[in-house]
Amino acid sequence: MTTRPQIKLGLSMRYLGYHAAAWRHPDADPAGASKLSHFIRVAQTAEAAKFDMVFLADGIGIRARDEPPGALSQSAQTAELEPLTLLSALSAVTSRIGLVSTASTTYNEPFHIARKFASLDHISGGRAGWNIVTSWSDAEARNFNREEHVEYATRYERAAEFVEVVKGLWDSWEEDALCMDKASGRFFDPAKLHALNHVGKHFRVQGPLSVKRTPQGRPILVQAGVSEVGMEIAAASAEVVYAVSHDLETGLGYYNNLKDRLEKYGRGRDELKVMPGLTIFTGHTESEAREKYDMMNALVPPQLGLSYLYGQMGDLSAYPLDGPVPEPTNPKVRSIARNLLTMARNDNLSIRDLYTITAAGFGTRVLIGTGPQVVDEMEAWVDAGAADGFNICPPILPLGLDDFVTFIMPELRRRGMFRTEYEGTTLRENLGAKMPKNRYS
Amino acid sequence: MTTRPQIKLGLSMRYLGYHAAAWRHPDADPAGASKLSHFIRVAQTAEAAKFDMVFLADGIGIRARDEPPGALSQSAQTAELEPLTLLSALSAVTSRIGLVSTASTTYNEPFHIARKFASLDHISGGRAGWNIVTSWSDAEARNFNREEHVEYATRYERAAEFVEVVKGLWDSWEEDALCMDKASGRFFDPAKLHALNHVGKHFRVQGPLSVKRTPQGRPILVQAGVSEVGMEIAAASAEVVYAVSHDLETGLGYYNNLKDRLEKYGRGRDELKVMPGLTIFTGHTESEAREKYDMMNALVPPQLGLSYLYGQMGDLSAYPLDGPVPEPTNPKVRSIARNLLTMARNDNLSIRDLYTITAAGFGTRVLIGTGPQVVDEMEAWVDAGAADGFNICPPILPLGLDDFVTFIMPELRRRGMFRTEYEGTTLRENLGAKMPKNRYS
Ligand SMILES: Cc1cc2nc3c(=O)[nH]c(=O)nc-3n(C[C@H](O)[C@H](O)[C@H](O)COP(=O)(O)O)c2cc1C
Ligand SMILES: Cc1cc2nc3c(=O)[nH]c(=O)nc-3n(C[C@H](O)[C@H](O)[C@H](O)COP(=O)(O)O)c2cc1C
Repeated sequence: MTTRPQIKLGLSMRYLGYHAAAWRHPDADPAGASKLSHFIRVAQTAEAAKFDMVFLADGIGIRARDEPPGALSQSAQTAELEPLTLLSALSAVTSRIGLVSTASTTYNEPFHIARKFASLDHISGGRAGWNIVTSWSDAEARNFNREEHVEYATRYERAAEFVEVVKGLWDSWEEDALCMDKASGRFFDPAKLHALNHVGKHFRVQGPLSVKRTPQGRPILVQAGVSEVGMEIAAASAEVVYAVSHDLETGLGYYNNLKDRLEKYGRGRDELKVMPGLTIFTGHTESEAREKYDMMNALVPPQLGLSYLYGQMGDLSAYPLDGPVPEPTNPKVRSIARNLLTMARNDNLSIRDLYTITAAGFGTRVLIGTGPQVVDEMEAWVDAGAADGFNICPPILPLGLDDFVTFIMPELRRRGMFRTEYEGTTLRENLGAKMPKNRYS
Repeated sequence: MTTRPQIKLGLSMRYLGYHAAAWRHPDADPAGASKLSHFIRVAQTAEAAKFDMVFLADGIGIRARDEPPGALSQSAQTAELEPLTLLSALSAVTSRIGLVSTASTTYNEPFHIARKFASLDHISGGRAGWNIVTSWSDAEARNFNREEHVEYATRYERAAEFVEVVKGLWDSWEEDALCMDKASGRFFDPAKLHALNHVGKHFRVQGPLSVKRTPQGRPILVQAGVSEVGMEIAAASAEVVYAVSHDLETGLGYYNNLKDRLEKYGRGRDELKVMPGLTIFTGHTESEAREKYDMMNALVPPQLGLSYLYGQMGDLSAYPLDGPVPEPTNPKVRSIARNLLTMARNDNLSIRDLYTITAAGFGTRVLIGTGPQVVDEMEAWVDAGAADGFNICPPILPLGLDDFVTFIMPELRRRGMFRTEYEGTTLRENLGAKMPKNRYS
């Protein structure tokens, strides 16, 4: 067996997993998403399997209005724990796995974000990552003194400046700033502590940060944007991108589009890992995998299912569930809706089919099959140059993760695609990412 | 021995302890304030000793400018971990001790604060507390798009509204809102989830909070204000007040002033615990205690010492160190400076004496003596009705905490003043505080 490039694996673990009816599974603890013990179980299982990182997506509020009526109270994706608080607790009971939390640049201040992620990086011994998002719902805006979400251009302009400020704050202390010389009484060398003095369009931030340089130099940056500005932020700064592509051609296009942008920032193509999301149903046989899938889907009531299409396509409850998907009436269709529509057209899906697929993986690509079947698909993407790894989004937790470990991991390792031991102690080392240089050094 | 009311004990553990030169002690790990392992050691020791809570003060930025020049680089109180992130990690490696973090109402948004503290309350099994402050330095303001700190009236008006919004968000979910009925597919009862729809002068916050009702109903509220509005916020909402009083008469006045305010909020005098801060130097003998004190003070260089007076009294470096303390030139003297001046006049202190006392305990009252001597003083305050307990601020950590456990705890217990076992599993139970009623129930 020749040595081949190792894939990177993230585990997305928001709520009880990505399936809309996860909480109704007979073996699921429906209250798990508010329990530390649930997440300890998940994170420790992922660490034992040598995942690069666990990841928590986030929205700052309860996103789903009750549309269509009756859907909201069927959703367990309403009560949860704040992700940074949760990951910090998990850092004390894990030792190698990366800890990636989402935080919005639209409804936060850069000083807080720089400080919290730097602290998590210290506390975890170099395992922190920040998934940079700009938020997307009016429900979030209404928790932060606004009526509606900030519009795209302003939001991303703010995001780009926000990320630069945070990176600047993370450079406040040079690596060797703390001399801590008890004899002379000098704790640090003032020439190696730097105020940022940032004055920009959206922020004025003096600094310096009150957290010293972190084990990873700075936390790992993650992005998940598909728009122009989102991809530029990723190309300029991110080490990881979580992608959503449902077919190889789209995936390949996205991958190359993103990688082509790296050169102008002086970065190599391998400095940014592209990790499409996958929601996997698996078992000993294909039919067992499909039974698990069907059983879960049967637990999705129609209102709940339709609510998954609502945000992107509006209220479809007046249309026959088993009829074709209508054209969206909203002229400003988002990229996610476009993906959904393309999929519906290509595969001739009914409304029920479409919400079933969406509700099965929260919009993530769904794979159903045995270990070798699923790994064939993963391998095809890697070999085609459409993925450097995958962000695994199990339908139910911890069950779907256990299935992944049982059925997928051995096959990945048999093919030499995934590590059997961590390469290093930090997330940066495990990702094979370079240490960032401090701008002042 | 008759049963007497039990005192409450907090352990304040910011940085490496409250003494300005803590990091220079021969046995101190000077890098400890950025290490999780240091805080685990401290929190687990405090828990073994049955402290009610550990507490982290906070400032959002490096407060000390280099005034007088040369002081800043002598201070270890410059690099630290963000307190909520740190307490969350500690929640996973402790099981009974309360976890109280400071957060500013001036430079935060109520939704974030409500969400993070509620999450910590779940994660810790009901041990979270929030120390409500309004911040105080221009250095903090400059990290949040401002030139100067927000002025007093606006800051406290915002604080009062902020606290009301946070309490409202914590009521979003009624206790029994989550039915989690797998059979019917109903996860929660929508009649028991409440949007706040707050519209006020400083905030518009729709809610509901995305965190379900917490083990303590809501986290414990702590306040440390001495001004009119600060004390009203405490009387209206807080279960604990950290006080700074240097003599029994002032302490008694403050205590009664605060307790007298409770009735108009329909609260009993025992629903708010007043806990003055104490920095203690102790040992087998009084002279051993004093040697520890003198040895630490000898490690404070004059610039560093003067920097402790700078914020309140301006630059005193032109005056003779061993001469009298001059009248402050700033006409708007803060309460802390007033306390310092009164102390200097009463005890005929030189500038060096004053900065020594201040640097020894960061302005907290300092006691030096054997266990029985220190406990005499604590008992006198409790018996006089000036304290319900104490916020212990060791000069050095973990050393000063170990001394407290060795020399003070046995004497407190001998006199029946402090518990030998926790009464309950939540901070609220251990404080003997009532469960709050949900406004919607
Ligand atoms: C895998 C993945 C995870 C995402 N996670 C979040 C999230 O947790 N919170 C959020 O507000 N947005 C999240 N997003 C949305 C993206 O940040 C982004 O807004 C969206 O992909 C649209 O991209 P664009 O705004 O660049 O067009 C996620 C997107 C993807 C693809
Ligand atoms: C024991 C104690 C701890 C405090 N901790 C903090 C703190 O961590 N952060 C902060 O900004 N202010 C802190 N303060 C300042 C108070 O919040 C308050 O601003 C100060 O006591 C002045 O009170 P006033 O503003 O009501 O006059 C603390 C005060 C005391 C007495």
